[in-house]
Amino acid sequence: MSIKEYLKSHHKSILDDLADFLSIKSISTNDEYQQDIQDCARFLMQKLNSIGMTDTKLIQTKKHPIVYASYHVSDNKPTVLVYAHYDVQPADPIELWNSEPFKATLRGDYLYARGVSDDKGQLYCHINAIEYLLKTTHTLPVNIVMIIEGEEEIGSPNLAQFLEEYKDKLKADVAVISDTPMINKDQPALCFSLRGMVYAEIIVTGPNKDLHSGQYGGIVQNPIQALCSIIANLKDNNDKVMIPGFYDDILSLSRKEKEYLDDIAINQDTYLTELGLTKFAKETPVNIAKQLWAEPTLDCNGIVGGYIEKGAKTIIPSKASTKLSMRLVANQDPLVIAEQFKTYVNSVSPQGVNIDIDIHSIAHPARMAIDTIYIKAAAAAYKSIFGIAPKFVGEGGTIPVVADFKQILGIDTVMMGFNCPDDCIHSPNERLLIENFFKGIQTSATFLSLAGQS
Amino acid sequence: MSIKEYLKSHHKSILDDLADFLSIKSISTNDEYQQDIQDCARFLMQKLNSIGMTDTKLIQTKKHPIVYASYHVSDNKPTVLVYAHYDVQPADPIELWNSEPFKATLRGDYLYARGVSDDKGQLYCHINAIEYLLKTTHTLPVNIVMIIEGEEEIGSPNLAQFLEEYKDKLKADVAVISDTPMINKDQPALCFSLRGMVYAEIIVTGPNKDLHSGQYGGIVQNPIQALCSIIANLKDNNDKVMIPGFYDDILSLSRKEKEYLDDIAINQDTYLTELGLTKFAKETPVNIAKQLWAEPTLDCNGIVGGYIEKGAKTIIPSKASTKLSMRLVANQDPLVIAEQFKTYVNSVSPQGVNIDIDIHSIAHPARMAIDTIYIKAAAAAYKSIFGIAPKFVGEGGTIPVVADFKQILGIDTVMMGFNCPDDCIHSPNERLLIENFFKGIQTSATFLSLAGQS
Repeated sequence: MSIKEYLKSHHKSILDDLADFLSIKSISTNDEYQQDIQDCARFLMQKLNSIGMTDTKLIQTKKHPIVYASYHVSDNKPTVLVYAHYDVQPADPIELWNSEPFKATLRGDYLYARGVSDDKGQLYCHINAIEYLLKTTHTLPVNIVMIIEGEEEIGSPNLAQFLEEYKDKLKADVAVISDTPMINKDQPALCFSLRGMVYAEIIVTGPNKDLHSGQYGGIVQNPIQALCSIIANLKDNNDKVMIPGFYDDILSLSRKEKEYLDDIAINQDTYLTELGLTKFAKETPVNIAKQLWAEPTLDCNGIVGGYIEKGAKTIIPSKASTKLSMRLVANQDPLVIAEQFKTYVNSVSPQGVNIDIDIHSIAHPARMAIDTIYIKAAAAAYKSIFGIAPKFVGEGGTIPVVADFKQILGIDTVMMGFNCPDDCIHSPNERLLIENFFKGIQTSATFLSLAGQS
Repeated sequence: MSIKEYLKSHHKSILDDLADFLSIKSISTNDEYQQDIQDCARFLMQKLNSIGMTDTKLIQTKKHPIVYASYHVSDNKPTVLVYAHYDVQPADPIELWNSEPFKATLRGDYLYARGVSDDKGQLYCHINAIEYLLKTTHTLPVNIVMIIEGEEEIGSPNLAQFLEEYKDKLKADVAVISDTPMINKDQPALCFSLRGMVYAEIIVTGPNKDLHSGQYGGIVQNPIQALCSIIANLKDNNDKVMIPGFYDDILSLSRKEKEYLDDIAINQDTYLTELGLTKFAKETPVNIAKQLWAEPTLDCNGIVGGYIEKGAKTIIPSKASTKLSMRLVANQDPLVIAEQFKTYVNSVSPQGVNIDIDIHSIAHPARMAIDTIYIKAAAAAYKSIFGIAPKFVGEGGTIPVVADFKQILGIDTVMMGFNCPDDCIHSPNERLLIENFFKGIQTSATFLSLAGQS
């Protein structure tokens, strides 16, 4: 049976199956959902068993388990390591969702649910491709090793150690990850660079209790204002990060990479309009693609302090804090940046408050070779299914494992994604184009077949 | 029966009665407590009826009702207007209370409850004094008009209009308010100045939804950082407010007032230690009393934006906001300051975000004459009960009605309080020294008697 026929006849069951997976609230960023995380990992293991993967295991880490599975065909075949993550971002603000975040909902051409793009739906492209190949050919074109982790959204704190420990079971020729977007729904992309990350929290503590602003104002340092002053010092008026040394180690783009950059056309007006904006952050002209591929960032992700309920309360709060993420580009070392950040924050802190800085997680950036046989196989697979050659792009997000694969397992990663930039990952109404979900299954199957011929 | 004997024999019933009043969650700053506010006003009206006040009324305003009562003795006697408020601040953070905030709890020499100092307990000093006088003499030494409002903690938005409308029923020679602290538990104080207020909110809106920080960071303006930049621009490094014109109209202290200032000794080390601090907000030497009496302030009372739950989420939020209060001193016009504030905030706003500024409430500052017969009566009353003459002080807080009494009713206000600066008003574990609560009843009765002889 051709894959097209197969997908046609299994259309409903494949979507139902995905919906079951999406219904599990596997939110890794909040400890309240620990049981859901465990349930999700077990659900996945059963799924992999049911399609015929062997050696399936739930490997516990210090936090959330990793799902492992493999299928060995022959020592003469290359081994592809399929990596994905089954954990998702929180759904809040829930009130902005048009349907329940953990109840997959078909609306128009899209399937809506938290995690449908990032990364459960894309993982299911590979799972369905393998299921098809095993059902129809009773073998696979390559050996497969799968590792699906539950801590990607919290910076994969236990993955590197797992890779070290299980190195022998993870021997592979190449890794494949589908967690990066296409250019748009018709134009696939192969990602050659990922940003790293330092995720930090600054906690400013002032007086030992909330104080009446009329009786202590102007005398005691206000922790909110102290925090705002620190944050305002992190960037200059043109959005440049002010941490000394922050930009020192950056590897600039090669000639070839710059050509790829020029190949990306983004309509800036449409871009702004879709976000409800009229201006960018910077006064100087913005090259959106260059910003994402080759420029580091620093963004506050949340801030809280004092009275945040309805109405008014006139206090100087005891405490204020912010969570912030720095996205790093090739050659920036997150450990070095974290230290530079701490030193700088302390140096710009006003007097009369205490500053605590927590580094929640770090991830190394990655820039990949683009002329390997596996990249060529992926490009050919895209072309045969989508009818157009993929563009080579950088990615603004962070997939820490790619640097770890290179460093610990010695392999490159093919980053072939099937969702789109406007699919609202990490936002309300996350979605995935159903047509591209099914094309993703076909592309994965074709990629594995081409990789097996190499 | 002497008042001492009376208070001894009624000790328990007086405290029980106060505890009932304190048990009502009359939080005016949050609309969830509207029913409690109504219940509290009704409770108070019944109490005033029960002690023999006449003409008691519940006067509805646009928001929370005002409790009115009067007692007429003779046209030849002066009329004292007793003002207080029955509304209270929210109790949060509730986890920092050592006993339930709305269950009055005796611990050591103190009674603990939200509102016991600010202002329910102090109101009950006057109510018990009047009750004693009426029970034992069947008359009063002066005519009394009482107005007890439920909107003081939200800036008394409807009080001025009420004063205008009910001017005829509010004719009086002097007002008395007990809502300002003593110097310490042994040293009473008469307050001659109050600060005004502008309470504002800044809401910064960026993209129309929360965005993935990896895909939009450095391109789109981050509303948290835009807000922090605005806030950081509000004050310089030495805590001076940067709004142009902010300090222009300030009336400096008179020679006599400066003498009172010199009469206040605050141990700065003890002051800092009690707050868990090692330094003040400013690098220059601080005169705490001068700061409270004669310097305006600007403090953020709360800030919120983006992800504030446990763990990590990597977003650029759609929105961030802060609530802030400016305390104003004599001659600063809150309407002028509010306009200066709005103009300045807009002028320092970064591009790429939208700024909304709400002025929640305003209040005029007040500086009072200190040589009136009623101030002298109050000073004599304090001296006879506490055994020591009161000091004359300014107050850092805001009681908007004092300026309104002067402007609309043409009367001065005697500000005689019975709580202490460390009684944690607006904070967890608000308290009142029981001994001074009973001394407050005696001082009120003595003051009314002396005022009647003038």
